[in-house]
Amino acid sequence: MNILRRHLLAAVPALAIGIALTPALRAESDPLPSWNDGASKQAIVAFVEKVTNEAGPDFVASADRIATFDNDGTLWPSHPMYTQLAFALDRIKAMAPEHPEWKDKQPFKAVLDGDMKAVAASGQKGLVELMMTSHAGMTAMEFAAIVTDWYKTAQHPRFKKPYSELAYQPMVELLAYLRANGFKTYIVSGGGIEFMRPMTEKMYGIPPEQVIGSSIMTKFEMQDGKPVLVRLPEVEFIDDKAGKQVAINRVIGKRPIAAFGNSAGDREMLQWTDTGAGARLMGLVFHDDAVREYAYGPADALEDTHFGAFPQDLMDEATEKGWVVFSMKDDWNKIFASDM
Amino acid sequence: MNILRRHLLAAVPALAIGIALTPALRAESDPLPSWNDGASKQAIVAFVEKVTNEAGPDFVASADRIATFDNDGTLWPSHPMYTQLAFALDRIKAMAPEHPEWKDKQPFKAVLDGDMKAVAASGQKGLVELMMTSHAGMTAMEFAAIVTDWYKTAQHPRFKKPYSELAYQPMVELLAYLRANGFKTYIVSGGGIEFMRPMTEKMYGIPPEQVIGSSIMTKFEMQDGKPVLVRLPEVEFIDDKAGKQVAINRVIGKRPIAAFGNSAGDREMLQWTDTGAGARLMGLVFHDDAVREYAYGPADALEDTHFGAFPQDLMDEATEKGWVVFSMKDDWNKIFASDM
Repeated sequence: MNILRRHLLAAVPALAIGIALTPALRAESDPLPSWNDGASKQAIVAFVEKVTNEAGPDFVASADRIATFDNDGTLWPSHPMYTQLAFALDRIKAMAPEHPEWKDKQPFKAVLDGDMKAVAASGQKGLVELMMTSHAGMTAMEFAAIVTDWYKTAQHPRFKKPYSELAYQPMVELLAYLRANGFKTYIVSGGGIEFMRPMTEKMYGIPPEQVIGSSIMTKFEMQDGKPVLVRLPEVEFIDDKAGKQVAINRVIGKRPIAAFGNSAGDREMLQWTDTGAGARLMGLVFHDDAVREYAYGPADALEDTHFGAFPQDLMDEATEKGWVVFSMKDDWNKIFASDM
Repeated sequence: MNILRRHLLAAVPALAIGIALTPALRAESDPLPSWNDGASKQAIVAFVEKVTNEAGPDFVASADRIATFDNDGTLWPSHPMYTQLAFALDRIKAMAPEHPEWKDKQPFKAVLDGDMKAVAASGQKGLVELMMTSHAGMTAMEFAAIVTDWYKTAQHPRFKKPYSELAYQPMVELLAYLRANGFKTYIVSGGGIEFMRPMTEKMYGIPPEQVIGSSIMTKFEMQDGKPVLVRLPEVEFIDDKAGKQVAINRVIGKRPIAAFGNSAGDREMLQWTDTGAGARLMGLVFHDDAVREYAYGPADALEDTHFGAFPQDLMDEATEKGWVVFSMKDDWNKIFASDM
């Protein structure tokens, strides 16, 4: 570095950061430090630069920079089971003292015995009964308090940390990077809206009004002269597969220009996003890291999982359409914020 | 004014506007110029000052400054009929050449004959048939194009202007005033979401994702290899009365701190808003100006209207609970932007 340049840089510290520091220190200004350099990271950065370049052909006004994210398996783990199912099982156990009859009644008995095989054997009907029993019968505000309390104490069985600390760090960086570039980020998840809202702001920086999910029916009622919403044991809407497009259209009313998922349940959301005109980014988190997280893609032992399967035909569609597959193993240098 | 002060003001033009100009010119900096000075305007300003005063006991963080607005009768006229019904009737007429059988079939015959009495006589069933025929059967994008085209040409029968020019100017000012003070403004209307969205941004400064309304079912379908949403002739959700609270909870997930309506259909939304802790503002537009618009409150000839009745018990509840009644006649010095 010649004397003149050194002098200039000393006078312009902000400029100096990007040019003069060592590579290790330069990384601090990288908005995606948990992403390894490679095709996935390049695709993200190239897309954002394109749609924010006012002089370019792919410029998109900030108001139309909508990005939608699936939650389970895309922003946090969905194994060994969906977090919301873990919550439901915990709730059943907490409610059991008031329901002595559950000791002899399936699927409750199976939950209380910790017999997950018997829970699974109760099938769709049993699962719905567990979900409705644990999620309905209280007001919306009471339910929010129950969920908030649960997040404070419940831990992931493998990672031994509160679920609220298990956001995928690279995806948190992606969310922040998009927002810093004028995007509005939404969750569009098969999970329950009211189960997600108590944690999305803290975990992902996503406010309640940008959380789209499944819902159960609620009923307006006056209690002590005050209006409340009572949660009813009846499904209102399932925000999965084609439901995601329906919900995006109903709630946002704009087609996303970027969408991220991890399983067959996100296919229609990505198709819908992909079909719009102009630059698009579709990304799929690929669970191929059994060491640091889980592996359940095609060819893995868990590929027939009930918790976010990524079948071969989804991989084929991604390849054909240029959807970016984020390999957890190769693209991410850390999974969780606490990883060293 | 002494010399020093005059000198200072000359040097600080922005400060001078508020202090030195004549009252007529000062009004230019009034954010609510179409509101007459009086209790309604004072209630609005006092509320906004309270919730934005960081040092005060009623301060509300910007993220929680949610204000919800009914649309028909609150932001634009709902007489002589809901605008969306006028659209439906126009659509039926436009579609008639492809349906020669309608000439002899009710309720279509009544529409084609312009016989509104016979339309009304077809009852709820007839109206639903007209709505579904005019609103379903096409994709969501096709419907948006149809609505957008209609707004370009359709005129209000009395005011002889496009509907899109008939926003109530005082309410447009109220929306802008709230947003300038960190509020997020939503429409929460019984009208169809997809019917409103093509005009809410232009008329009210409200983007598509802040429009909550009624909806019909949609179906994901592949057409020529591209995913589309086909509108089905089946009601998904009616965003009226208690439905407004349900939808606010589902979509926004926060309780509004301000809510505005004009009829019995807005009662539950105002009750829900009112029941929260801290400062609240509930306002009801009262149609008592038959000269400049319409009069259909209690004691008016139109009080049994089907298009936004304001019954006596709503007036009683407003009085009892301190909800502010905006008299169009007394509180507003103009109704529409084009009024002199």
